Amino acid sequence: MPINLFPVRVFWEDTDAGGIVYHANYLKFMERARSDLLCQLNFDQNSERTREDGVLFVVASLDIAYRTAAVLGDNLTVHTRVEKIRRASIIFEQNVMRGNELITAGHVRIGVINAVSMQPTAIPDELYNKLQTLSQD
Amino acid sequence: MPINLFPVRVFWEDTDAGGIVYHANYLKFMERARSDLLCQLNFDQNSERTREDGVLFVVASLDIAYRTAAVLGDNLTVHTRVEKIRRASIIFEQNVMRGNELITAGHVRIGVINAVSMQPTAIPDELYNKLQTLSQD
Amino acid sequence: MPINLFPVRVFWEDTDAGGIVYHANYLKFMERARSDLLCQLNFDQNSERTREDGVLFVVASLDIAYRTAAVLGDNLTVHTRVEKIRRASIIFEQNVMRGNELITAGHVRIGVINAVSMQPTAIPDELYNKLQTLSQD
Amino acid sequence: MPINLFPVRVFWEDTDAGGIVYHANYLKFMERARSDLLCQLNFDQNSERTREDGVLFVVASLDIAYRTAAVLGDNLTVHTRVEKIRRASIIFEQNVMRGNELITAGHVRIGVINAVSMQPTAIPDELYNKLQTLSQD
Repeated sequence: MPINLFPVRVFWEDTDAGGIVYHANYLKFMERARSDLLCQLNFDQNSERTREDGVLFVVASLDIAYRTAAVLGDNLTVHTRVEKIRRASIIFEQNVMRGNELITAGHVRIGVINAVSMQPTAIPDELYNKLQTLSQD
Repeated sequence: MPINLFPVRVFWEDTDAGGIVYHANYLKFMERARSDLLCQLNFDQNSERTREDGVLFVVASLDIAYRTAAVLGDNLTVHTRVEKIRRASIIFEQNVMRGNELITAGHVRIGVINAVSMQPTAIPDELYNKLQTLSQD
Repeated sequence: MPINLFPVRVFWEDTDAGGIVYHANYLKFMERARSDLLCQLNFDQNSERTREDGVLFVVASLDIAYRTAAVLGDNLTVHTRVEKIRRASIIFEQNVMRGNELITAGHVRIGVINAVSMQPTAIPDELYNKLQTLSQD
Repeated sequence: MPINLFPVRVFWEDTDAGGIVYHANYLKFMERARSDLLCQLNFDQNSERTREDGVLFVVASLDIAYRTAAVLGDNLTVHTRVEKIRRASIIFEQNVMRGNELITAGHVRIGVINAVSMQPTAIPDELYNKLQTLSQD
Protein backbone atom coordinates (compact mmCIF):
# COMPACT_ATOMS: atom_id res chain seq x y z
CA MET A 1 0.00 0.00 0.00
CA PRO A 2 1.33 3.46 -0.82
CA ILE A 3 2.48 5.43 2.20
CA ASN A 4 2.42 8.66 0.25
CA LEU A 5 0.33 9.99 -2.63
CA PHE A 6 1.85 13.12 -4.11
CA PRO A 7 0.14 15.22 -6.80
CA VAL A 8 2.16 16.67 -9.69
CA ARG A 9 0.81 18.88 -12.45
CA VAL A 10 2.80 18.93 -15.70
CA PHE A 11 4.03 22.42 -16.61
CA TRP A 12 5.92 23.69 -19.69
CA GLU A 13 9.25 23.28 -17.86
CA ASP A 14 8.60 19.53 -17.61
CA THR A 15 8.01 18.95 -21.33
CA ASP A 16 10.35 18.76 -24.32
CA ALA A 17 10.11 19.35 -28.05
CA GLY A 18 8.71 15.81 -28.46
CA GLY A 19 5.55 17.21 -26.87
CA ILE A 20 5.86 14.95 -23.83
CA VAL A 21 7.46 15.04 -20.38
CA TYR A 22 11.28 14.87 -20.64
CA HIS A 23 12.37 11.51 -19.26
CA ALA A 24 14.70 12.85 -16.55
CA ASN A 25 11.93 14.94 -15.04
CA TYR A 26 10.04 11.94 -13.68
CA LEU A 27 12.98 11.53 -11.30
CA LYS A 28 12.23 15.03 -10.01
CA PHE A 29 8.58 14.11 -9.47
CA MET A 30 9.64 11.02 -7.52
CA GLU A 31 12.09 13.03 -5.42
CA ARG A 32 9.40 15.58 -4.56
CA ALA A 33 7.24 12.73 -3.32
CA ARG A 34 10.02 11.35 -1.10
CA SER A 35 10.66 14.83 0.30
CA ASP A 36 6.95 15.25 0.94
CA LEU A 37 6.93 11.96 2.83
CA LEU A 38 9.85 13.08 5.02
CA CYS A 39 8.13 16.42 5.60
CA GLN A 40 4.98 14.64 6.77
CA LEU A 41 7.10 12.61 9.17
CA ASN A 42 8.39 15.93 10.59
CA PHE A 43 11.86 15.32 9.23
CA ASP A 44 13.35 18.70 8.28
CA GLN A 45 15.85 18.10 5.48
CA ASN A 46 16.99 21.70 5.37
CA SER A 47 18.03 21.86 9.02
CA GLU A 48 19.58 18.36 8.77
CA ARG A 49 21.79 19.30 5.84
CA THR A 50 23.89 21.74 7.89
CA ARG A 51 23.79 20.14 11.36
CA GLU A 52 26.84 18.19 12.49
CA ASP A 53 24.77 15.18 13.38
CA GLY A 54 22.38 15.72 10.48
CA VAL A 55 21.77 13.12 7.81
CA LEU A 56 21.29 13.38 4.06
CA PHE A 57 19.36 10.96 1.93
CA VAL A 58 21.20 10.27 -1.30
CA VAL A 59 20.14 8.20 -4.28
CA ALA A 60 22.36 5.12 -4.49
CA SER A 61 20.72 3.53 -7.53
CA LEU A 62 17.45 3.48 -9.40
CA ASP A 63 15.64 1.87 -12.27
CA ILE A 64 12.67 3.21 -14.14
CA ALA A 65 10.42 1.91 -16.91
CA TYR A 66 8.58 4.39 -19.09
CA ARG A 67 5.21 2.89 -20.01
CA THR A 68 3.41 5.79 -21.62
CA ALA A 69 3.97 9.52 -21.93
CA ALA A 70 2.54 12.33 -19.82
CA VAL A 71 1.77 15.64 -21.50
CA LEU A 72 1.37 19.33 -20.66
CA GLY A 73 -1.41 19.95 -18.16
CA ASP A 74 -1.67 16.34 -16.96
CA ASN A 75 -2.49 15.85 -13.33
CA LEU A 76 -0.33 13.00 -12.10
CA THR A 77 0.07 11.27 -8.76
CA VAL A 78 3.25 9.70 -7.44
CA HIS A 79 2.48 6.54 -5.44
CA THR A 80 5.29 5.76 -3.01
CA ARG A 81 5.70 2.48 -1.16
CA VAL A 82 8.53 1.22 1.06
CA GLU A 83 9.85 -1.93 -0.57
CA LYS A 84 12.61 -2.67 1.89
CA ILE A 85 14.08 -0.83 4.84
CA ARG A 86 17.46 -1.48 6.42
CA ARG A 87 19.47 0.41 9.03
CA ALA A 88 21.25 2.62 6.50
CA SER A 89 19.23 2.30 3.32
CA ILE A 90 15.70 2.21 2.00
CA ILE A 91 14.28 0.94 -1.26
CA PHE A 92 11.21 2.81 -2.43
CA GLU A 93 8.86 1.66 -5.15
CA GLN A 94 7.48 4.70 -6.88
CA ASN A 95 4.88 4.69 -9.63
CA VAL A 96 3.77 7.80 -11.46
CA MET A 97 0.09 7.46 -12.36
CA ARG A 98 -2.44 9.46 -14.39
CA GLY A 99 -5.61 8.30 -12.68
CA ASN A 100 -5.46 4.51 -12.99
CA GLU A 101 -2.99 4.57 -15.83
CA LEU A 102 0.63 3.74 -15.10
CA ILE A 103 3.00 6.28 -16.66
CA THR A 104 6.33 5.21 -15.13
CA ALA A 105 7.31 2.45 -12.71
CA GLY A 106 10.48 2.84 -10.68
CA HIS A 107 12.55 1.66 -7.76
CA VAL A 108 14.91 3.97 -5.91
CA ARG A 109 17.51 2.84 -3.40
CA ILE A 110 18.36 5.58 -0.93
CA GLY A 111 21.49 5.61 1.17
CA VAL A 112 21.86 7.64 4.31
CA ILE A 113 25.01 9.66 4.93
CA ASN A 114 26.18 12.09 7.57
CA ALA A 115 25.65 15.65 6.33
CA VAL A 116 29.15 16.78 7.29
CA SER A 117 31.42 13.75 6.87
CA MET A 118 29.42 12.43 3.90
CA GLN A 119 30.03 8.93 5.30
CA PRO A 120 27.28 6.26 5.45
CA THR A 121 25.35 6.29 8.71
CA ALA A 122 22.18 4.81 10.18
CA ILE A 123 18.72 6.25 9.66
CA PRO A 124 17.81 8.20 12.85
CA ASP A 125 15.80 5.89 15.15
CA GLU A 126 12.65 7.95 15.27
CA LEU A 127 12.43 8.17 11.49
CA TYR A 128 13.34 4.50 11.12
CA ASN A 129 10.53 3.47 13.45
CA LYS A 130 7.98 5.65 11.71
CA LEU A 131 8.92 4.26 8.29
CA GLN A 132 8.83 0.70 9.67
CA THR A 133 5.39 1.21 11.08
CA LEU A 134 4.05 2.92 7.99
CA SER A 135 5.38 0.23 5.70
CA GLN A 136 3.72 -2.54 7.68
CA ASP A 137 0.25 -1.07 7.55
CA MET B 1 -4.79 43.00 -6.32
CA PRO B 2 -3.41 39.60 -7.22
CA ILE B 3 -5.65 37.61 -9.56
CA ASN B 4 -3.80 34.41 -8.74
CA LEU B 5 -2.01 33.07 -5.67
CA PHE B 6 0.03 30.01 -6.50
CA PRO B 7 1.83 27.91 -3.85
CA VAL B 8 5.32 26.55 -4.54
CA ARG B 9 7.34 24.36 -2.22
CA VAL B 10 11.12 24.39 -2.70
CA PHE B 11 12.54 20.95 -3.48
CA TRP B 12 16.16 19.77 -3.97
CA GLU B 13 15.84 20.21 -7.75
CA ASP B 14 15.26 23.95 -7.21
CA THR B 15 18.39 24.57 -5.15
CA ASP B 16 22.06 24.85 -6.06
CA ALA B 17 25.38 24.31 -4.30
CA GLY B 18 25.11 27.81 -2.81
CA GLY B 19 22.38 26.33 -0.60
CA ILE B 20 19.69 28.56 -2.11
CA VAL B 21 17.20 28.46 -4.98
CA TYR B 22 19.00 28.70 -8.34
CA HIS B 23 18.10 32.08 -9.86
CA ALA B 24 16.63 30.75 -13.12
CA ASN B 25 14.16 28.56 -11.23
CA TYR B 26 12.09 31.52 -10.03
CA LEU B 27 11.10 31.95 -13.69
CA LYS B 28 9.70 28.42 -13.57
CA PHE B 29 7.70 29.24 -10.45
CA MET B 30 6.28 32.33 -12.17
CA GLU B 31 5.41 30.34 -15.30
CA ARG B 32 3.60 27.72 -13.23
CA ALA B 33 1.50 30.50 -11.74
CA ARG B 34 0.59 31.92 -15.15
CA SER B 35 -0.35 28.43 -16.37
CA ASP B 36 -2.44 27.91 -13.26
CA LEU B 37 -4.24 31.19 -13.97
CA LEU B 38 -5.01 30.10 -17.56
CA CYS B 39 -6.16 26.73 -16.27
CA GLN B 40 -8.56 28.40 -13.83
CA LEU B 41 -9.94 30.46 -16.72
CA ASN B 42 -10.62 27.15 -18.54
CA PHE B 43 -7.98 27.84 -21.14
CA ASP B 44 -6.43 24.50 -22.17
CA GLN B 45 -2.87 25.22 -23.28
CA ASN B 46 -2.21 21.64 -24.32
CA SER B 47 -5.11 21.45 -26.79
CA GLU B 48 -4.32 24.98 -28.04
CA ARG B 49 -0.73 24.14 -28.88
CA THR B 50 -1.67 21.71 -31.67
CA ARG B 51 -4.93 23.27 -32.98
CA GLU B 52 -4.76 25.27 -36.22
CA ASP B 53 -6.50 28.21 -34.61
CA GLY B 54 -4.80 27.66 -31.27
CA VAL B 55 -2.68 30.27 -29.57
CA LEU B 56 0.54 30.06 -27.61
CA PHE B 57 1.65 32.46 -24.92
CA VAL B 58 5.33 33.25 -25.27
CA VAL B 59 7.57 35.33 -23.04
CA ALA B 60 8.60 38.48 -24.92
CA SER B 61 10.66 40.04 -22.17
CA LEU B 62 11.02 40.05 -18.42
CA ASP B 63 12.86 41.67 -15.59
CA ILE B 64 13.38 40.30 -12.12
CA ALA B 65 14.95 41.59 -8.92
CA TYR B 66 16.26 39.11 -6.37
CA ARG B 67 15.67 40.54 -2.89
CA THR B 68 16.47 37.62 -0.65
CA ALA B 69 17.05 33.91 -1.09
CA ALA B 70 14.62 31.04 -0.68
CA VAL B 71 15.91 27.73 0.67
CA LEU B 72 15.07 24.04 0.64
CA GLY B 73 11.65 23.31 2.12
CA ASP B 74 10.38 26.90 1.94
CA ASN B 75 6.71 27.32 1.20
CA LEU B 76 6.42 30.20 -1.23
CA THR B 77 3.50 31.88 -2.95
CA VAL B 78 3.56 33.50 -6.36
CA HIS B 79 1.35 36.60 -6.43
CA THR B 80 0.27 37.43 -9.99
CA ARG B 81 -1.33 40.69 -11.06
CA VAL B 82 -2.23 41.98 -14.54
CA GLU B 83 -0.27 45.18 -15.03
CA LYS B 84 -1.41 45.95 -18.56
CA ILE B 85 -3.45 44.09 -21.11
CA ARG B 86 -3.53 44.80 -24.84
CA ARG B 87 -5.04 42.91 -27.77
CA ALA B 88 -1.94 40.79 -28.39
CA SER B 89 0.12 41.10 -25.24
CA ILE B 90 -0.13 41.13 -21.48
CA ILE B 91 2.23 42.41 -18.83
CA PHE B 92 2.08 40.50 -15.57
CA GLU B 93 3.57 41.65 -12.29
CA GLN B 94 4.67 38.58 -10.35
CA ASN B 95 6.11 38.58 -6.87
CA VAL B 96 7.40 35.48 -5.16
CA MET B 97 6.70 35.74 -1.42
CA ARG B 98 7.58 33.73 1.69
CA GLY B 99 4.69 34.79 3.89
CA ASN B 100 4.93 38.58 3.93
CA GLU B 101 8.54 38.62 2.85
CA LEU B 102 9.35 39.52 -0.74
CA ILE B 103 11.79 37.05 -2.31
CA THR B 104 11.74 38.17 -5.96
CA ALA B 105 9.87 40.91 -7.80
CA GLY B 106 9.32 40.56 -11.53
CA HIS B 107 7.47 41.75 -14.60
CA VAL B 108 6.81 39.47 -17.54
CA ARG B 109 5.58 40.62 -20.93
CA ILE B 110 3.72 37.87 -22.75
CA GLY B 111 3.09 37.88 -26.48
CA VAL B 112 0.42 35.81 -28.14
CA ILE B 113 1.19 33.86 -31.29
CA ASN B 114 -0.70 31.42 -33.49
CA ALA B 115 0.29 27.87 -32.55
CA VAL B 116 0.88 26.81 -36.16
CA SER B 117 2.13 29.89 -38.02
CA MET B 118 3.99 31.20 -34.94
CA GLN B 119 2.87 34.72 -36.02
CA PRO B 120 1.55 37.30 -33.54
CA THR B 121 -2.20 37.17 -33.11
CA ALA B 122 -4.87 38.57 -30.79
CA ILE B 123 -5.78 37.06 -27.44
CA PRO B 124 -9.00 35.03 -27.94
CA ASP B 125 -12.00 37.28 -27.02
CA GLU B 126 -13.35 35.16 -24.22
CA LEU B 127 -9.99 34.98 -22.48
CA TYR B 128 -9.34 38.68 -23.10
CA ASN B 129 -12.65 39.61 -21.48
CA LYS B 130 -12.06 37.38 -18.47
CA LEU B 131 -8.59 38.86 -17.92
CA GLN B 132 -9.96 42.40 -18.34
CA THR B 133 -12.66 41.78 -15.77
CA LEU B 134 -10.34 40.11 -13.31
CA SER B 135 -7.75 42.85 -13.55
CA GLN B 136 -10.31 45.55 -12.79
CA ASP B 137 -11.56 43.97 -9.62
CA MET C 1 34.88 0.23 -26.60
CA PRO C 2 33.10 3.58 -26.30
CA ILE C 3 31.70 4.87 -29.59
CA ASN C 4 31.30 8.35 -28.15
CA LEU C 5 33.17 10.39 -25.56
CA PHE C 6 31.23 13.48 -24.57
CA PRO C 7 32.62 16.20 -22.27
CA VAL C 8 30.39 17.80 -19.62
CA ARG C 9 31.38 20.57 -17.26
CA VAL C 10 29.37 20.87 -14.04
CA PHE C 11 27.68 24.27 -13.68
CA TRP C 12 25.61 25.75 -10.82
CA GLU C 13 22.37 24.61 -12.52
CA ASP C 14 23.54 20.99 -12.18
CA THR C 15 24.15 21.10 -8.44
CA ASP C 16 21.83 21.07 -5.44
CA ALA C 17 21.94 22.26 -1.84
CA GLY C 18 23.79 19.06 -0.89
CA GLY C 19 26.77 20.60 -2.72
CA ILE C 20 26.79 17.86 -5.36
CA VAL C 21 25.23 17.18 -8.77
CA TYR C 22 21.47 16.55 -8.43
CA HIS C 23 20.86 12.88 -9.25
CA ALA C 24 18.40 13.46 -12.11
CA ASN C 25 20.89 15.64 -13.96
CA TYR C 26 23.17 12.74 -14.85
CA LEU C 27 20.34 11.57 -17.11
CA LYS C 28 20.63 14.88 -18.94
CA PHE C 29 24.38 14.40 -19.35
CA MET C 30 23.76 10.92 -20.79
CA GLU C 31 21.08 12.22 -23.16
CA ARG C 32 23.42 14.94 -24.43
CA ALA C 33 25.96 12.25 -25.23
CA ARG C 34 23.41 10.16 -27.18
CA SER C 35 22.31 13.26 -29.11
CA ASP C 36 25.93 14.08 -29.85
CA LEU C 37 26.42 10.55 -31.18
CA LEU C 38 23.39 10.91 -33.49
CA CYS C 39 24.65 14.30 -34.61
CA GLN C 40 28.04 12.82 -35.51
CA LEU C 41 26.24 10.16 -37.55
CA ASN C 42 24.52 13.00 -39.46
CA PHE C 43 21.15 12.16 -37.98
CA ASP C 44 19.20 15.42 -37.58
CA GLN C 45 16.78 14.92 -34.69
CA ASN C 46 15.17 18.31 -35.15
CA SER C 47 14.15 17.76 -38.75
CA GLU C 48 13.10 14.18 -37.93
CA ARG C 49 10.73 15.25 -35.18
CA THR C 50 8.34 17.03 -37.55
CA ARG C 51 8.68 14.92 -40.75
CA GLU C 52 5.92 12.41 -41.53
CA ASP C 53 8.44 9.62 -41.95
CA GLY C 54 10.67 10.94 -39.18
CA VAL C 55 11.61 8.91 -36.14
CA LEU C 56 12.02 9.81 -32.49
CA PHE C 57 14.24 8.05 -30.01
CA VAL C 58 12.47 7.64 -26.69
CA VAL C 59 13.76 6.24 -23.43
CA ALA C 60 11.98 2.94 -22.69
CA SER C 61 13.79 2.11 -19.46
CA LEU C 62 17.01 2.80 -17.65
CA ASP C 63 18.99 1.92 -14.58
CA ILE C 64 21.74 3.91 -12.98
CA ALA C 65 24.11 3.39 -10.07
CA TYR C 66 25.58 6.40 -8.30
CA ARG C 67 29.12 5.54 -7.19
CA THR C 68 30.48 8.88 -6.11
CA ALA C 69 29.43 12.50 -6.40
CA ALA C 70 30.48 15.11 -8.93
CA VAL C 71 30.77 18.72 -7.80
CA LEU C 72 30.69 22.24 -9.22
CA GLY C 73 33.39 22.83 -11.83
CA ASP C 74 34.14 19.15 -12.43
CA ASN C 75 35.07 18.20 -15.96
CA LEU C 76 33.32 14.92 -16.69
CA THR C 77 33.19 12.65 -19.71
CA VAL C 78 30.27 10.48 -20.72
CA HIS C 79 31.47 7.17 -22.21
CA THR C 80 28.82 5.64 -24.46
CA ARG C 81 28.88 2.07 -25.75
CA VAL C 82 26.27 0.12 -27.73
CA GLU C 83 25.37 -2.88 -25.61
CA LYS C 84 22.74 -4.37 -27.90
CA ILE C 85 21.09 -3.22 -31.07
CA ARG C 86 17.84 -4.57 -32.49
CA ARG C 87 15.62 -3.41 -35.36
CA ALA C 88 13.54 -1.11 -33.17
CA SER C 89 15.54 -0.62 -30.01
CA ILE C 90 19.04 -0.02 -28.74
CA ILE C 91 20.59 -0.56 -25.34
CA PHE C 92 23.37 1.86 -24.51
CA GLU C 93 25.82 1.47 -21.67
CA GLN C 94 26.77 4.92 -20.44
CA ASN C 95 29.31 5.71 -17.76
CA VAL C 96 29.97 9.18 -16.45
CA MET C 97 33.65 9.50 -15.55
CA ARG C 98 35.87 12.11 -13.88
CA GLY C 99 39.17 11.14 -15.43
CA ASN C 100 39.54 7.46 -14.54
CA GLU C 101 37.07 7.62 -11.70
CA LEU C 102 33.59 6.21 -12.25
CA ILE C 103 30.88 8.62 -11.08
CA THR C 104 27.74 6.89 -12.38
CA ALA C 105 27.17 3.68 -14.34
CA GLY C 106 24.00 3.30 -16.36
CA HIS C 107 22.13 1.40 -19.04
CA VAL C 108 19.51 3.05 -21.21
CA ARG C 109 17.09 1.20 -23.48
CA ILE C 110 15.93 3.38 -26.34
CA GLY C 111 12.84 2.64 -28.39
CA VAL C 112 12.22 4.09 -31.81
CA ILE C 113 8.83 5.55 -32.70
CA ASN C 114 7.37 7.33 -35.70
CA ALA C 115 7.41 11.09 -35.04
CA VAL C 116 3.80 11.56 -36.13
CA SER C 117 1.95 8.37 -35.22
CA MET C 118 4.08 7.83 -32.09
CA GLN C 119 3.96 4.07 -32.91
CA PRO C 120 7.04 1.81 -32.67
CA THR C 121 8.99 1.60 -35.90
CA ALA C 122 12.35 0.34 -37.16
CA ILE C 123 15.58 2.30 -36.90
CA PRO C 124 16.25 3.83 -40.36
CA ASP C 125 18.58 1.45 -42.31
CA GLU C 126 21.43 3.87 -42.78
CA LEU C 127 21.58 4.72 -39.09
CA TYR C 128 21.17 1.07 -38.11
CA ASN C 129 24.10 0.07 -40.29
CA LYS C 130 26.33 2.83 -38.95
CA LEU C 131 25.54 1.88 -35.35
CA GLN C 132 26.12 -1.81 -36.14
CA THR C 133 29.50 -1.07 -37.67
CA LEU C 134 30.57 1.26 -34.87
CA SER C 135 29.59 -1.17 -32.17
CA GLN C 136 31.63 -3.98 -33.69
CA ASP C 137 34.85 -2.03 -33.83
CA MET D 1 33.77 43.96 -27.22
CA PRO D 2 32.86 40.58 -25.75
CA ILE D 3 35.31 39.30 -23.18
CA ASN D 4 33.93 35.79 -23.44
CA LEU D 5 32.35 33.77 -26.24
CA PHE D 6 30.73 30.62 -24.92
CA PRO D 7 29.26 27.91 -27.17
CA VAL D 8 25.97 26.21 -26.25
CA ARG D 9 24.29 23.42 -28.17
CA VAL D 10 20.53 23.03 -27.66
CA PHE D 11 19.58 19.59 -26.32
CA TRP D 12 16.17 18.03 -25.61
CA GLU D 13 16.37 19.11 -21.95
CA ASP D 14 16.45 22.75 -23.09
CA THR D 15 13.28 22.61 -25.19
CA ASP D 16 9.60 22.54 -24.30
CA ALA D 17 6.40 21.29 -25.91
CA GLY D 18 6.21 24.51 -27.94
CA GLY D 19 9.15 23.08 -29.91
CA ILE D 20 11.49 25.86 -28.81
CA VAL D 21 13.94 26.55 -25.99
CA TYR D 22 12.08 27.08 -22.69
CA HIS D 23 12.50 30.74 -21.74
CA ALA D 24 14.11 30.15 -18.32
CA ASN D 25 16.86 28.06 -19.86
CA TYR D 26 18.55 31.03 -21.54
CA LEU D 27 19.42 32.17 -18.02
CA LYS D 28 21.28 28.88 -17.58
CA PHE D 29 23.19 29.47 -20.82
CA MET D 30 24.16 32.95 -19.62
CA GLU D 31 25.24 31.62 -16.23
CA ARG D 32 27.43 28.98 -17.87
CA ALA D 33 29.15 31.75 -19.82
CA ARG D 34 29.82 33.79 -16.67
CA SER D 35 31.21 30.71 -14.93
CA ASP D 36 33.38 29.98 -17.94
CA LEU D 37 34.72 33.53 -17.78
CA LEU D 38 35.60 33.13 -14.08
CA CYS D 39 37.21 29.80 -14.82
CA GLN D 40 39.38 31.37 -17.52
CA LEU D 41 40.44 34.02 -15.00
CA ASN D 42 41.53 31.16 -12.70
CA PHE D 43 38.79 31.91 -10.20
CA ASP D 44 37.70 28.60 -8.65
CA GLN D 45 34.06 28.99 -7.62
CA ASN D 46 33.89 25.57 -6.00
CA SER D 47 36.75 26.16 -3.59
CA GLU D 48 35.48 29.71 -2.90
CA ARG D 49 32.02 28.55 -1.91
CA THR D 50 33.24 26.74 1.23
CA ARG D 51 36.22 28.91 2.24
CA GLU D 52 35.76 31.34 5.11
CA ASP D 53 37.11 34.21 3.05
CA GLY D 54 35.54 32.90 -0.17
CA VAL D 55 33.11 34.91 -2.22
CA LEU D 56 29.97 33.97 -4.09
CA PHE D 57 28.59 35.74 -7.12
CA VAL D 58 24.83 36.06 -6.85
CA VAL D 59 22.35 37.44 -9.36
CA ALA D 60 20.89 40.67 -7.98
CA SER D 61 18.67 41.50 -10.93
CA LEU D 62 18.35 40.86 -14.63
CA ASP D 63 16.34 41.73 -17.68
CA ILE D 64 16.05 39.78 -20.88
CA ALA D 65 14.35 40.33 -24.22
CA TYR D 66 13.43 37.31 -26.31
CA ARG D 67 13.86 38.24 -29.99
CA THR D 68 13.47 34.92 -31.75
CA ALA D 69 13.39 31.29 -30.71
CA ALA D 70 16.18 28.75 -30.69
CA VAL D 71 15.36 25.11 -31.46
CA LEU D 72 16.70 21.62 -30.85
CA GLY D 73 20.21 21.13 -32.24
CA ASP D 74 20.98 24.84 -32.64
CA ASN D 75 24.55 25.86 -32.02
CA LEU D 76 24.43 29.10 -30.08
CA THR D 77 27.07 31.43 -28.69
CA VAL D 78 26.76 33.55 -25.57
CA HIS D 79 28.53 36.88 -26.01
CA THR D 80 29.46 38.40 -22.66
CA ARG D 81 30.58 41.97 -22.13
CA VAL D 82 31.26 43.91 -18.91
CA GLU D 83 28.88 46.86 -18.93
CA LYS D 84 29.86 48.32 -15.57
CA ILE D 85 32.10 47.18 -12.78
CA ARG D 86 32.05 48.48 -9.20
CA ARG D 87 33.77 47.31 -6.03
CA ALA D 88 30.99 44.91 -5.05
CA SER D 89 28.94 44.44 -8.19
CA ILE D 90 29.23 43.91 -11.91
CA ILE D 91 26.74 44.42 -14.70
CA PHE D 92 27.19 42.06 -17.61
CA GLU D 93 25.58 42.45 -21.01
CA GLN D 94 24.94 39.00 -22.41
CA ASN D 95 23.54 38.25 -25.84
CA VAL D 96 22.70 34.77 -27.04
CA MET D 97 23.40 34.52 -30.77
CA ARG D 98 22.85 31.94 -33.51
CA GLY D 99 25.59 33.02 -35.88
CA ASN D 100 24.83 36.69 -36.51
CA GLU D 101 21.23 36.41 -35.43
CA LEU D 102 20.28 37.76 -32.01
CA ILE D 103 18.17 35.27 -30.05
CA THR D 104 18.03 36.94 -26.63
CA ALA D 105 19.50 40.16 -25.25
CA GLY D 106 20.04 40.50 -21.54
CA HIS D 107 21.67 42.38 -18.71
CA VAL D 108 22.62 40.72 -15.46
CA ARG D 109 23.64 42.55 -12.31
CA ILE D 110 25.83 40.40 -10.09
CA GLY D 111 26.41 41.08 -6.43
CA VAL D 112 29.32 39.69 -4.49
CA ILE D 113 28.79 38.18 -1.06
CA ASN D 114 30.95 36.39 1.48
CA ALA D 115 30.45 32.63 1.12
CA VAL D 116 29.96 32.08 4.85
CA SER D 117 28.30 35.23 6.20
CA MET D 118 26.31 35.77 2.98
CA GLN D 119 26.93 39.53 3.48
CA PRO D 120 27.93 41.86 0.61
CA THR D 121 31.67 42.15 0.17
CA ALA D 122 34.16 43.51 -2.36
CA ILE D 123 35.32 41.62 -5.44
CA PRO D 124 38.77 40.16 -4.66
CA ASP D 125 41.42 42.59 -5.95
CA GLU D 126 43.09 40.26 -8.39
CA LEU D 127 39.80 39.36 -10.05
CA TYR D 128 38.67 43.00 -10.02
CA ASN D 129 41.83 44.08 -11.79
CA LYS D 130 41.59 41.36 -14.42
CA LEU D 131 37.96 42.24 -15.14
CA GLN D 132 38.82 45.94 -15.32
CA THR D 133 41.62 45.31 -17.77
CA LEU D 134 39.58 42.96 -19.91
CA SER D 135 36.63 45.31 -20.08
CA GLN D 136 38.81 48.18 -21.28
CA ASP D 137 40.29 46.32 -24.21
